Amino acid sequence: MLLDKNIPIRYILTSVKYDLLIVLLVSLLTYYLTEKSHRYLPEMPLSIPVFLGTAISILLSFKMNQSYDRWWEARKVWGAIVNDSRSLVIQMQSFFGQDEREVIRRIAYRQIAWCYSLGRSLRGLNPQEGIGHLLSEEDQQEVGRHLNKPLAMLQLNALEIRALRQRDEIDVFTHVHLDKTLVRLCDSMGKAERINGTIFPSTYRQFLHFIIYLFVVTLSISLQDVEPYFKIPLLLVIALAFFMIEKSAYHLQDPFRNRPSDVSVTAIAITIDINIRQLLGEQKVPEAAQPSAFYIL
Amino acid sequence: MLLDKNIPIRYILTSVKYDLLIVLLVSLLTYYLTEKSHRYLPEMPLSIPVFLGTAISILLSFKMNQSYDRWWEARKVWGAIVNDSRSLVIQMQSFFGQDEREVIRRIAYRQIAWCYSLGRSLRGLNPQEGIGHLLSEEDQQEVGRHLNKPLAMLQLNALEIRALRQRDEIDVFTHVHLDKTLVRLCDSMGKAERINGTIFPSTYRQFLHFIIYLFVVTLSISLQDVEPYFKIPLLLVIALAFFMIEKSAYHLQDPFRNRPSDVSVTAIAITIDINIRQLLGEQKVPEAAQPSAFYIL
Amino acid sequence: MLLDKNIPIRYILTSVKYDLLIVLLVSLLTYYLTEKSHRYLPEMPLSIPVFLGTAISILLSFKMNQSYDRWWEARKVWGAIVNDSRSLVIQMQSFFGQDEREVIRRIAYRQIAWCYSLGRSLRGLNPQEGIGHLLSEEDQQEVGRHLNKPLAMLQLNALEIRALRQRDEIDVFTHVHLDKTLVRLCDSMGKAERINGTIFPSTYRQFLHFIIYLFVVTLSISLQDVEPYFKIPLLLVIALAFFMIEKSAYHLQDPFRNRPSDVSVTAIAITIDINIRQLLGEQKVPEAAQPSAFYIL
Amino acid sequence: MLLDKNIPIRYILTSVKYDLLIVLLVSLLTYYLTEKSHRYLPEMPLSIPVFLGTAISILLSFKMNQSYDRWWEARKVWGAIVNDSRSLVIQMQSFFGQDEREVIRRIAYRQIAWCYSLGRSLRGLNPQEGIGHLLSEEDQQEVGRHLNKPLAMLQLNALEIRALRQRDEIDVFTHVHLDKTLVRLCDSMGKAERINGTIFPSTYRQFLHFIIYLFVVTLSISLQDVEPYFKIPLLLVIALAFFMIEKSAYHLQDPFRNRPSDVSVTAIAITIDINIRQLLGEQKVPEAAQPSAFYIL
Amino acid sequence: MLLDKNIPIRYILTSVKYDLLIVLLVSLLTYYLTEKSHRYLPEMPLSIPVFLGTAISILLSFKMNQSYDRWWEARKVWGAIVNDSRSLVIQMQSFFGQDEREVIRRIAYRQIAWCYSLGRSLRGLNPQEGIGHLLSEEDQQEVGRHLNKPLAMLQLNALEIRALRQRDEIDVFTHVHLDKTLVRLCDSMGKAERINGTIFPSTYRQFLHFIIYLFVVTLSISLQDVEPYFKIPLLLVIALAFFMIEKSAYHLQDPFRNRPSDVSVTAIAITIDINIRQLLGEQKVPEAAQPSAFYIL
Repeated sequence: MLLDKNIPIRYILTSVKYDLLIVLLVSLLTYYLTEKSHRYLPEMPLSIPVFLGTAISILLSFKMNQSYDRWWEARKVWGAIVNDSRSLVIQMQSFFGQDEREVIRRIAYRQIAWCYSLGRSLRGLNPQEGIGHLLSEEDQQEVGRHLNKPLAMLQLNALEIRALRQRDEIDVFTHVHLDKTLVRLCDSMGKAERINGTIFPSTYRQFLHFIIYLFVVTLSISLQDVEPYFKIPLLLVIALAFFMIEKSAYHLQDPFRNRPSDVSVTAIAITIDINIRQLLGEQKVPEAAQPSAFYIL
Repeated sequence: MLLDKNIPIRYILTSVKYDLLIVLLVSLLTYYLTEKSHRYLPEMPLSIPVFLGTAISILLSFKMNQSYDRWWEARKVWGAIVNDSRSLVIQMQSFFGQDEREVIRRIAYRQIAWCYSLGRSLRGLNPQEGIGHLLSEEDQQEVGRHLNKPLAMLQLNALEIRALRQRDEIDVFTHVHLDKTLVRLCDSMGKAERINGTIFPSTYRQFLHFIIYLFVVTLSISLQDVEPYFKIPLLLVIALAFFMIEKSAYHLQDPFRNRPSDVSVTAIAITIDINIRQLLGEQKVPEAAQPSAFYIL
Repeated sequence: MLLDKNIPIRYILTSVKYDLLIVLLVSLLTYYLTEKSHRYLPEMPLSIPVFLGTAISILLSFKMNQSYDRWWEARKVWGAIVNDSRSLVIQMQSFFGQDEREVIRRIAYRQIAWCYSLGRSLRGLNPQEGIGHLLSEEDQQEVGRHLNKPLAMLQLNALEIRALRQRDEIDVFTHVHLDKTLVRLCDSMGKAERINGTIFPSTYRQFLHFIIYLFVVTLSISLQDVEPYFKIPLLLVIALAFFMIEKSAYHLQDPFRNRPSDVSVTAIAITIDINIRQLLGEQKVPEAAQPSAFYIL
Repeated sequence: MLLDKNIPIRYILTSVKYDLLIVLLVSLLTYYLTEKSHRYLPEMPLSIPVFLGTAISILLSFKMNQSYDRWWEARKVWGAIVNDSRSLVIQMQSFFGQDEREVIRRIAYRQIAWCYSLGRSLRGLNPQEGIGHLLSEEDQQEVGRHLNKPLAMLQLNALEIRALRQRDEIDVFTHVHLDKTLVRLCDSMGKAERINGTIFPSTYRQFLHFIIYLFVVTLSISLQDVEPYFKIPLLLVIALAFFMIEKSAYHLQDPFRNRPSDVSVTAIAITIDINIRQLLGEQKVPEAAQPSAFYIL
Repeated sequence: MLLDKNIPIRYILTSVKYDLLIVLLVSLLTYYLTEKSHRYLPEMPLSIPVFLGTAISILLSFKMNQSYDRWWEARKVWGAIVNDSRSLVIQMQSFFGQDEREVIRRIAYRQIAWCYSLGRSLRGLNPQEGIGHLLSEEDQQEVGRHLNKPLAMLQLNALEIRALRQRDEIDVFTHVHLDKTLVRLCDSMGKAERINGTIFPSTYRQFLHFIIYLFVVTLSISLQDVEPYFKIPLLLVIALAFFMIEKSAYHLQDPFRNRPSDVSVTAIAITIDINIRQLLGEQKVPEAAQPSAFYIL
């Protein structure tokens, strides 16, 4: 997640540098053709690029909307994970017997591990890294056998609760009630995987780029009588504005790519870790995630 | 689902070729009339086509929005199917007795078959093809008697769980709890059928095409003094931009048509297949779906 | 529901013919005033109608959006009715004893009757017509006493299930579970009634028409120097585009009016009829609804 | 709720008369300054007001959207109240014993009273008026002690159901099941109170008015060469269009103000009254609400 | 929450004063350059800033939409807190035995304290201030040990209900039923924390400011022939309109910052306090929150 300040200009410019280069080349080419001979370039009424610019704003606005919605939905999914993780622990404390402290701790730790692991898995990192202290040796082996690691941990928690039921520590109503919380967690996992695995209609982006270049070319021809020392910067800044917004939307639409604009899943998992440990009454809790220079992951 | 790259230009152009041909004819006709005599063509202020172009952008934006929403809703429905399929298996393992491994396997396999079959049925393909290894002989005959094959499989799963209840292997609470998962699956099936069977208001599309052609004609007349070697390509690329976006929306709005822009239901069904088999502890799982050149189905 | 093709031009033009007539009169009047004397008409910069046209597009886009949402919500409600009707039957088969086949059939038939009746009632047709073969004599009399026929059928189903409970054929959990399905059906009915009974803010439509006429008048004055044989058709087609989209939105916003653009509730009810009869194991099912020339009701 | 026809022009004009007066004064002032001396007024390119007009359309569209959403949400909340009121009665008939007819009637009447009372309370009218025939003497006194009358009635219904449970007429499952319906009613009440008590960001409206006046002033200066007998009406009708839409949005956003554009809560409460009495098997039901000249409350 | 009237101009201007200063400097600089020599400034067609202005309106509209949605979602979350707090009390009265009045009062008071505390915590104020009279000494110490104070209170309520269950005062169904209400409260808390902790994509705002300045500069150059006594105020008011709307959106998007535009969480908590005490039958209730000059917190 990008923080509210200190975003370096460099970060912004890097992502659009190739597009700006092309815009620069187009402007220089138009200038060259104009200098050489007016004959090569027709009259282009300014209305054409201006109308294209308005069209681009409208189409960008659609893209920005949908990308923002994906990002916000991803954030909501992780918000639901926070809520259900905390609820799960409070529910266990509320419904399990006094002697089940150890089981509660085991399930709670597995739940913390699930959060870290899901975050890493979505980002394409090794989902079993850094959770060794939260899982037993046995659990780690079982999880290792699965392709979908977080799903395996969820199954382990379901089976652990089942074991309680078989030892008659909980009744069927409690079992059903807790299972609903597990189902919600399974849903959240699936939703995050869906956002991560579904490509935003890619042709739309290509058409948008196509129209932005069309805009740059027509505008460049329209302004052929304007001095180049003024025209070229103008073209660059207007194109820059469009490309920056498009890029910003492009980054938002895939919120689990290990990029500064990601949903901050690691920081959220640490918050869950802290909350759950405090609910368990533990004194030692991890430190809250510290932001990097201008973002937090 | 279209992948993020390698989309061939040909794929894009093919879908709009007839529209572009008409645009070309309109341009040539205007040129011919202009050459022959200015008398046949009135003065057309450029503001008219420019305003029409802005109107088109706004109307296209509405269309793009709704089409995208249909596509995204379809994707969400299949996301819910993934979640509920996995949850169903974990729930059975959690609530059924130790001796019911065979029943769990049978229901789980039927659930996998349901996913494949629903995907094929939505796409208008034979819904009973390729699921022979997942259903018993008897099941296949029963399913064959139904018009709606996936609904029949859902009923079989409900009856199988009912049989468990009648043998007193599960109690009524568990029965109710599992039934809720089946109801959610039934809902998802109905939602996908709804999106598939409901035609996007077709007059809207016709009006949009009508306005785009109006735009092309008026713009063509407005620009009658511009050189044809420049005007005709300009008309073509602007019209191309509009038609491409309209076509892209048109494809999104019907996401189960066996087209490259479909929701990738086969790939999703394979993922469910893999996940469920791993939850069952099976070693042999199918291979994940491999994308074709530029899309995955 | 309008089909994807074969929509006759006549159907489209009929709905906007009065508006087009007014536009024609306005154009002729302007022409007459121009011919007689330029003194009567001021100079009108083209920017004024062009800006109004853009404003109209934006306001139309809002209207189109909300109307589409109403129509789509109506379709979703009927999708939920499909799902819950099918679920209800599967649930009865899953939870009722072997000897209750007759009760299941009776409730299932009443549910089919409810679907037909609700559809007719929403469209303002006689809601008790054509369901005689699905209800007992007694039921028909009871329903006849009520103003809200579908609500009466819902009550009958609730009481029938209650009777089962009182005969101890089902337990309270099953009773509660089935009641939830009835509550969802009651909700769907209420939602459809809400959409049907709530008038879309009617002043908005009047203001929109007002601005469209303002646009036509100002555009007509602006173009007073353009040849009438060209100007009048131009005014007509642009106004036609606006009025057609407005009309199309107007039709969508009330999806239960027995019009070609309706949600196809009869066809949906027939689908439910077929599905339920197949779930009951019946051989004879009604035929799927056949579309009329260009729509299906 | 405004009906579809017969809306008097006077109703529409009354709400914008002050704004139109100001527009008239601005036009006259510009005319006066123009007549006296051109020196006092600069050249104002028409593009400036035209661009402002487009901006206003876009901002109005946002406002219209959000206001409509509030109104529609309010309508949905009352739709849910209809559904849950009917469901509550059917549930009581379904789950209570034969001897509880009197209790059912008492709770059902209280529920009807709750609907009337909530509607009046939202509109700032005396919430205890006109429900004397529906509540016992005792109930009325209890309700009188509370600041939030509808909440008090909800509590009374909850306690009445509780009493049934304590007399062992219903079991805990039924109790929980009915309580869920009460919770939904409590939610609906809270949602209506939320919409009623939350002020739409008021600065936005002020900024919008500010820009509309800016538009009027700049347009008035731009058109200084147009004849006043033509310019002033033109300014008035365009400003009228903007102000009417803004006003219409303003009215929608607060749907419980005892205004013609309100959600018709009284009419809805009467419908609930009729439906519930018919479900109770009563012969005498109130008459459906009759619309006033052009609206129904 | 800003009230509907009396918003001082000063409040509005303060927030945009730096931006207006920059706009003023830009205008003066252009004027200076124009006076000195026309050579330094190129011809800038008015279409360029006009098109930028339209683009800004569209992009602002997106921002306004999303910010409003965040604010409205925050308000909905607090509406749900109102509903669930009231439901919790009614449920306890409905399901607990006669002798549990004291337990009900204790949990209800803790719930009130939770509301106040959550509101203060979201605003970054001391979350344990001003709730001493609602919590026991013991509770306060326990809460003090936690980093997340409201979560600790929720846990205490869960454990108190659990104690009832262990003393067999309530059965497992009631326990599960009440726990669902606690889970909803936990969800609402998490949702408010999510809105509070998630930064609206900050690059978007920077790009918007960038384009507004680009607009100001180009418009200023375009209007170089207009008299400065007229041009500079014009630039200022147009820029003012944009910046005011942007600022208004900026304030809405973070609704828990102890600012006049906040969601009025303190006033809502007081309403809950009054409602709950009346449900408990207490005579003495706090006074409703009084608005400050132009807002209520």
